[in-house]
Amino acid sequence: MADQDAQSPVGCEPPALSVLRWDEPPEGPVLVLLDQTRLPAEEVELVCTDVPALVRAIRTLAVRGAPLLGIAGGYGVALAAARGFDVAEAAGLLEGARPTAVNLGYGVRRVAAAYWEAAGKGDEAAAAAALAEARALHREDARASRRMAENGEVLLEELLPGRAYRLLTHCNTGALVSGGEGTAFAVALRVHRQGRLRRLWVDETRPLLQGARLTAYEAARNGLAYSLLTDNAAGSLFAAGEVDAVLIGADRIAADGSVANKVGSYPLAVLAKYHHVPFIVVAPTTTVDLETADGTSIIVEQRSGREVTELTSPHGVSTGGGGGMVVAPLGAPAYNPAFDVTPPELITAIVTEEGVVSPVTGVGLAELCARSSQVTIS
Amino acid sequence: MADQDAQSPVGCEPPALSVLRWDEPPEGPVLVLLDQTRLPAEEVELVCTDVPALVRAIRTLAVRGAPLLGIAGGYGVALAAARGFDVAEAAGLLEGARPTAVNLGYGVRRVAAAYWEAAGKGDEAAAAAALAEARALHREDARASRRMAENGEVLLEELLPGRAYRLLTHCNTGALVSGGEGTAFAVALRVHRQGRLRRLWVDETRPLLQGARLTAYEAARNGLAYSLLTDNAAGSLFAAGEVDAVLIGADRIAADGSVANKVGSYPLAVLAKYHHVPFIVVAPTTTVDLETADGTSIIVEQRSGREVTELTSPHGVSTGGGGGMVVAPLGAPAYNPAFDVTPPELITAIVTEEGVVSPVTGVGLAELCARSSQVTIS
Repeated sequence: MADQDAQSPVGCEPPALSVLRWDEPPEGPVLVLLDQTRLPAEEVELVCTDVPALVRAIRTLAVRGAPLLGIAGGYGVALAAARGFDVAEAAGLLEGARPTAVNLGYGVRRVAAAYWEAAGKGDEAAAAAALAEARALHREDARASRRMAENGEVLLEELLPGRAYRLLTHCNTGALVSGGEGTAFAVALRVHRQGRLRRLWVDETRPLLQGARLTAYEAARNGLAYSLLTDNAAGSLFAAGEVDAVLIGADRIAADGSVANKVGSYPLAVLAKYHHVPFIVVAPTTTVDLETADGTSIIVEQRSGREVTELTSPHGVSTGGGGGMVVAPLGAPAYNPAFDVTPPELITAIVTEEGVVSPVTGVGLAELCARSSQVTIS
Repeated sequence: MADQDAQSPVGCEPPALSVLRWDEPPEGPVLVLLDQTRLPAEEVELVCTDVPALVRAIRTLAVRGAPLLGIAGGYGVALAAARGFDVAEAAGLLEGARPTAVNLGYGVRRVAAAYWEAAGKGDEAAAAAALAEARALHREDARASRRMAENGEVLLEELLPGRAYRLLTHCNTGALVSGGEGTAFAVALRVHRQGRLRRLWVDETRPLLQGARLTAYEAARNGLAYSLLTDNAAGSLFAAGEVDAVLIGADRIAADGSVANKVGSYPLAVLAKYHHVPFIVVAPTTTVDLETADGTSIIVEQRSGREVTELTSPHGVSTGGGGGMVVAPLGAPAYNPAFDVTPPELITAIVTEEGVVSPVTGVGLAELCARSSQVTIS
């Protein structure tokens, strides 16, 4: 097997990624996003001066990942308020931008609520309240990342005591999806910093290759020992006993513990079950949606078949500027769900910033969420 | 879900694909191959005038698929003989071109044996004997295709009586891999002609996209109702009850019934087991290798990581002529096995031209192979 044993020297971490930031140049406030569709080839920033630009960035996946979508949605409301746009309309546009990640609606509604609560004090005060709330959400998410990493590491030690781990992950769950270092990836990163990561197996994650483009980029940037693989090849690793645990994120967790995550997560859960390998979901409590009773109620976003029939380059230049590279017969019909749903019986544990639910039950989840809502944010 | 209900009118079949043919222009005999790396964009023929050219075509997958590799290998020996090259050396080169498909070695050894048997009658007679044997192998394979399709259809009717089927397939197993209409795809095609195919679900089959490029091409060409999907999305179809049976081919079947096939077959087998969906392997008895005791003894070809980290276009022109489109960080290490191995306990049935083995046991397989070797070829 291919190998990469680069380790970052102790005390020499790479600079944190600037994935999303609020800026206030003389022309007025803006939201600046790292354009994730251009990675790993180029680090290019998108400057959003209004909410339609941000909605476009969300739909094209320039900004993506459940926790980060919540933060982006929150700042989007703050942007509308600061620039004097219609805040209710902006909130509606943002909430409808993508259907599956629950965090987007959460961030939008929370910042909009702060705005409306301060609305009696005038537009400027309301805009300031919205921005303060978006910033609080951002800080909380960074803190949640740290706690998820700690809780995930403790869980791994309990499940697989005294070992260095070979972890398999799917899609992208690092700093690129979060106000901090991410969800599942943050656990792998923490284990790596402790010298206990034997290897991170990175599923490429078709169709949009978030694993190849983004997780491999974050793994390389942080000096992890990692190998990329086609999603197909994960089965061979399980069969060969090369996977100690699977760690993934989540886009929405229903009240019964069903987890919607990037398409390809469910087959990994079935493989993990068959091979008696722990299957661990790492997500903040903001991803839990107690309003959604179970997996069958989760709306799974269906995306264009062209994501399957055409390959799009992350390098703006090399496709010749004319859309994707066609790999199927012209007019080939394609089935392209963006997510799938894994039922609780296939999940060993859900790790949140408030603690771990294992076995995964609705009662356990509800308790964690109640604990989360009692926390006062400093 | 995306739909395509095109049906070819009864009695109006498309012309058969010319996948591989022997030709004798004035300059001397040649083997002409349809270059499968250029499909579906272009139908381009490669003309091999010597064995090194054929070996290159095998390694680059211009010609591929277990049964067709056997035929190509056989004609390769005949080509060396007809052109006066060293037949033993040619046979060695061809046998070593790719390690996993057993048919390649079978075809090479069988035609070489015919050559050596006639060697006492002079070079010309030996070359003629080699060519006759390659042609016999070609004809037998076409006949085996028809029989596998018949046997597969009977099996489906037994397993799922009175239904129209939603079949899921992986990689490419049609006319492009065979002297006839293929293995697993030939069963789907027969069912389609009887009006009993509800849908063929076509896994794209990363990394080389044989499903998207080749199976979709063959499905469209024959007017099947099909949909393409990323390999990741198969799990969602199983979970939704949208798959009635899985049909795949094989590159090597060990004596215990373990099946080496395109990477991604094993995870499908695990999914099928979990969802109580029949998992059916369709392959000629020439794919059975009684010399290989079990799955652990099968050598799985490891291919270049660049197949994962770079996307190559089937359209020669659109990559800009400079290799593939890089989708991972430069230098990203990748794990890229070309095949995986499915153990017999996950396989509902193995369908061959001689009959069906179900449940899959070494004894059952050995019996079929014995029957096959008793058949006299007309």
